[in-house]
Amino acid sequence: EGKAKRVYATNQSDLFIVEYKDDATAFNGQKKAQLGGKGVVNNAITSRLYPLLEQAGIPTHFVEQLSEREQVVKSVQIIPAEVIIRNIAAGSFAKRLNILEGTPLHTPLFELSFKDDALGDPLVPDGTFESLGLASSAEMQEIRRLALAVNVFLSAFFLERGLKLVDFKLEFGRLPNGTIVLADEISPDTCRLWDSQTDEKMDKDRFRRDLGGVEEAYQEVLARVMK
Amino acid sequence: EGKAKRVYATNQSDLFIVEYKDDATAFNGQKKAQLGGKGVVNNAITSRLYPLLEQAGIPTHFVEQLSEREQVVKSVQIIPAEVIIRNIAAGSFAKRLNILEGTPLHTPLFELSFKDDALGDPLVPDGTFESLGLASSAEMQEIRRLALAVNVFLSAFFLERGLKLVDFKLEFGRLPNGTIVLADEISPDTCRLWDSQTDEKMDKDRFRRDLGGVEEAYQEVLARVMK
Repeated sequence: EGKAKRVYATNQSDLFIVEYKDDATAFNGQKKAQLGGKGVVNNAITSRLYPLLEQAGIPTHFVEQLSEREQVVKSVQIIPAEVIIRNIAAGSFAKRLNILEGTPLHTPLFELSFKDDALGDPLVPDGTFESLGLASSAEMQEIRRLALAVNVFLSAFFLERGLKLVDFKLEFGRLPNGTIVLADEISPDTCRLWDSQTDEKMDKDRFRRDLGGVEEAYQEVLARVMK
Repeated sequence: EGKAKRVYATNQSDLFIVEYKDDATAFNGQKKAQLGGKGVVNNAITSRLYPLLEQAGIPTHFVEQLSEREQVVKSVQIIPAEVIIRNIAAGSFAKRLNILEGTPLHTPLFELSFKDDALGDPLVPDGTFESLGLASSAEMQEIRRLALAVNVFLSAFFLERGLKLVDFKLEFGRLPNGTIVLADEISPDTCRLWDSQTDEKMDKDRFRRDLGGVEEAYQEVLARVMK
């Protein structure tokens, strides 16, 4: 069980069922709440996007949506990296460099954090996983290539639906044959999405920053994604 | 005037004089002291190493040593990056990832901080300078290439003199013609150096961590560098 999802074994050792919960957490678990329907929304959005990414040539762990809150995924060995792609300065990046949130970046920024709640998922230099022997140089190059390709696809996808993809977090894993695949969810929990006309925040920042209308924003993102 | 050096204009607009002070600072200036002879030692070490690096194909800002505490350097436009190369886990990297100090890294790690005292020289993702339009992709690739070449040269140079090069900080600038050159000092202020037999610290960590024998360690490094 993780912060926002439960994972169940199946009678096939290479498949798992992921159940999306309504639990919302922020600031490394220090802020917690229940958001009605969040699990249903995030499962629906992820289950819509993953097959489109597969069609676009991005290998993923996704197999199929099973129910409102559940999906079937392939068993992968997760690489303990949080990959963040930034198109517009926001959040920790804007704060760390004292840059106005909303400043467009000249080139998409690829950022890595080390996935470890006890350490607070610290930002790390790009070469860290190779340096620590946790991934090969070829694997990290593939992760970068895939993450930037996901950015190209999703930026266009969301913009057609009136949403700017400000930044987002991805995770990757290895299949038993060594293939690097996209794993985890893609949702307003893991993406900053701003309305492209008004710059209104349509993502988890509404929860982090107590802006109200969290469930409504998630529902609106789902409605646009399903268009 | 900086924390450890003063810079003077000369009657040639493309040349500056750098004077090395005995001032020692740590933790972004929060800890301060005078270390007798530090300026002389750091100028001597830097003035010995820079011509060797030039011979090894690394373009630098160095022109010549002028006196015990002074050197002549070319005027450069400094790129506001602190480039850190790590061969062995230590300092902030070991702390952030809760890794035992002294753990060898599988591959040298290239790390970038944004040089800004007010922000605390924050660690930033590799692509930050391109993303903010502060350097081109070609410039940052050249900086990485030069920093890793400096590491190859210095690691061998120090090891022949009984010192492990654990990690070090470099700065780079642009000449008026656009050439990227190595700038700033290379000394026990900017390098972690451990005795290769005993792992005794021979660098600024003796000051940061109140280990005593700071001046003696710097003098010993100078003596070995001059061999």
